[in-house]
Amino acid sequence: MVGAGQLARMTHQAALQVGIHLHVLAESADAPAVLAGAQSTVGSASDLDALRSLAERTKVLTFDHELVPAELLDVLDGEGFRSFPGAPALRMAQDKLLARRTLGHAGFPVPEALELRDDPVSEARRLGERWGWPIVLKTRRGGYDGRGVEIVGVDDLDRVLGAAEPGEWLAEQCVEIALEIAVVGVRTPSGRWAAYPVVETTQVDGMCRELVMPARISAELAEQAQALAKSVADGIDATGIIAVELFVTGAGALVVNELAVRPHNSGHATIEGSVTSQFENHLRAVLDLPIGATSLVAPAVAMVNVVGPENGSDPRDHLARAMEVSGAHIHLYDKEARPGRKLGHVTALGPDHDAALAIARRCADLLAGVEASELVS
Amino acid sequence: MVGAGQLARMTHQAALQVGIHLHVLAESADAPAVLAGAQSTVGSASDLDALRSLAERTKVLTFDHELVPAELLDVLDGEGFRSFPGAPALRMAQDKLLARRTLGHAGFPVPEALELRDDPVSEARRLGERWGWPIVLKTRRGGYDGRGVEIVGVDDLDRVLGAAEPGEWLAEQCVEIALEIAVVGVRTPSGRWAAYPVVETTQVDGMCRELVMPARISAELAEQAQALAKSVADGIDATGIIAVELFVTGAGALVVNELAVRPHNSGHATIEGSVTSQFENHLRAVLDLPIGATSLVAPAVAMVNVVGPENGSDPRDHLARAMEVSGAHIHLYDKEARPGRKLGHVTALGPDHDAALAIARRCADLLAGVEASELVS
Repeated sequence: MVGAGQLARMTHQAALQVGIHLHVLAESADAPAVLAGAQSTVGSASDLDALRSLAERTKVLTFDHELVPAELLDVLDGEGFRSFPGAPALRMAQDKLLARRTLGHAGFPVPEALELRDDPVSEARRLGERWGWPIVLKTRRGGYDGRGVEIVGVDDLDRVLGAAEPGEWLAEQCVEIALEIAVVGVRTPSGRWAAYPVVETTQVDGMCRELVMPARISAELAEQAQALAKSVADGIDATGIIAVELFVTGAGALVVNELAVRPHNSGHATIEGSVTSQFENHLRAVLDLPIGATSLVAPAVAMVNVVGPENGSDPRDHLARAMEVSGAHIHLYDKEARPGRKLGHVTALGPDHDAALAIARRCADLLAGVEASELVS
Repeated sequence: MVGAGQLARMTHQAALQVGIHLHVLAESADAPAVLAGAQSTVGSASDLDALRSLAERTKVLTFDHELVPAELLDVLDGEGFRSFPGAPALRMAQDKLLARRTLGHAGFPVPEALELRDDPVSEARRLGERWGWPIVLKTRRGGYDGRGVEIVGVDDLDRVLGAAEPGEWLAEQCVEIALEIAVVGVRTPSGRWAAYPVVETTQVDGMCRELVMPARISAELAEQAQALAKSVADGIDATGIIAVELFVTGAGALVVNELAVRPHNSGHATIEGSVTSQFENHLRAVLDLPIGATSLVAPAVAMVNVVGPENGSDPRDHLARAMEVSGAHIHLYDKEARPGRKLGHVTALGPDHDAALAIARRCADLLAGVEASELVS
């Protein structure tokens, strides 16, 4: 696995359960997956020699992030080293403009999006006047967790785009969002497919804050979302886990937002909430093993991210308090606490969404150092 | 953790989830917990310097087996290094005669047991004549998974005891067993306690072959068994996980069979079957953190051990077939396959015991290399 963050860490956890060996290419020796004990090589995901060395030690290459130059995978593919997902699917997840164009041309519902080329500020202003304000500005590559995404009015353009390189940003029509959902699915190299129940996510500042499964939408809309995700996965030949983030518009239509072709935050609740976790199913899929059951083991599942609080407090210092919350499954990634950084997550199962959410939120709040007296119980 | 077998491996898995670091003292660098990525020191559990070195690196010492000379723990305790469980509880689990005597004196129901001292064969013959045949012969120390336990008639005595050292074996009255059950519980250093639902085990040749939770016994008997286990745990000042294996006699009485003061095979189904696994609760308890909920997440849970088959076949070679069994949670310990060796286990949840057992058995059979055509579906 290229990358050694929390996704690789949780993949290692799934791997060791079934006796599979995960070897990670880590940027540093204190990366979460290395601390968890995955076999590791320290090196850069942009270094062909490091990637080749990993490929030589492993049966197949896969990824915990999309920041791998796809052309290097093309080189390795030419040398007979397979990666799942392959370079074409990875390119889609790396390049938001390419994804929008490709999916749009294939007939999928996507927001209108255009590259800001020669004069970003003027071009964005013209698009805002055409579409109506606000509009969405996104870096074409490299953004995550809300970084590189801005919802702007005309007065924000100079601030955001003043120093922009031509082609660095794209402008997108702002969709009226009634609900954000995600479909996490798994696809094997031979095209076998299974989807998890649709996830309903709540974003704060562009970062997933919490989610519930199954999403509180109609069965018809859920099936439509799963079918859409399968079509996208087939269309880009995704292998392993794919997460398709979708907007539900006020009119009840689905619009594709973002793609990830790896285990994804939207799927963390599958560890306890589903028969087979997204991490085990990612391993199964990239090794072309049978896909495990994706059904839920409880009526409702909730997950709340543990994000580094502004005061710099470390969740590990609050473990004793947080463990008092009965029914909460605590996951900490062994990362240095920094404000705004994802440091862990909490999952809870329950008879209904509110019960599960209440447990997960309370535990996550305690991990973030919120005093019990401040909590609404 | 002293020891690095599958129990340490699964404890590492629980530790990394919550961000706790497990350091193991391993007999060899290819021990299951080392291969899983726990921090490790290679050394002997009988070596005071190795134990002290582990104690110096860790907050508390705990164990994946009982083969640690208790007097070494006394030395370390004198130096200020704490271990959970402590030496007195460990002695009980190490020495079957001591456990029988101590529990018997304290009024717990135990089979009558006597040490074979000067002339093992003659003494055993006299006991058999007094109690009636067959009788049970057990090595006082070191037996596990049926090794060191023999149910014998008068004609077997020379074979089993012919080369016995005085004091090596004990003879025990044979209990008429209607059912074997186990209570897995967790106790903190300050005496907080929780028990998992009673487990019903099936032994083959003295090794746990499969189990279901909750045991198919009356609620009264289940409560009685849990209360008995709590009394035993309190009585020997156990800390961490304790497993109390019990016989239910034909008359419906409970008799204490064996004790383990560590995570135990009887508790493996808690990984998926309970809100908090025995491994996480062992860590919580020895670190004096709050105990996690021990309730089940499904009406019935089954676990079947994967034991190395006689033909030497390796379960890792059968993973693709076994993964076709929907709903089976496969655990492999990364151990070299040898006939009769515990190599993994399979857990399944279900609406009832038979449904869960059928899934777990089928998957375990496939892992053991049984052809699908030979399976009763």
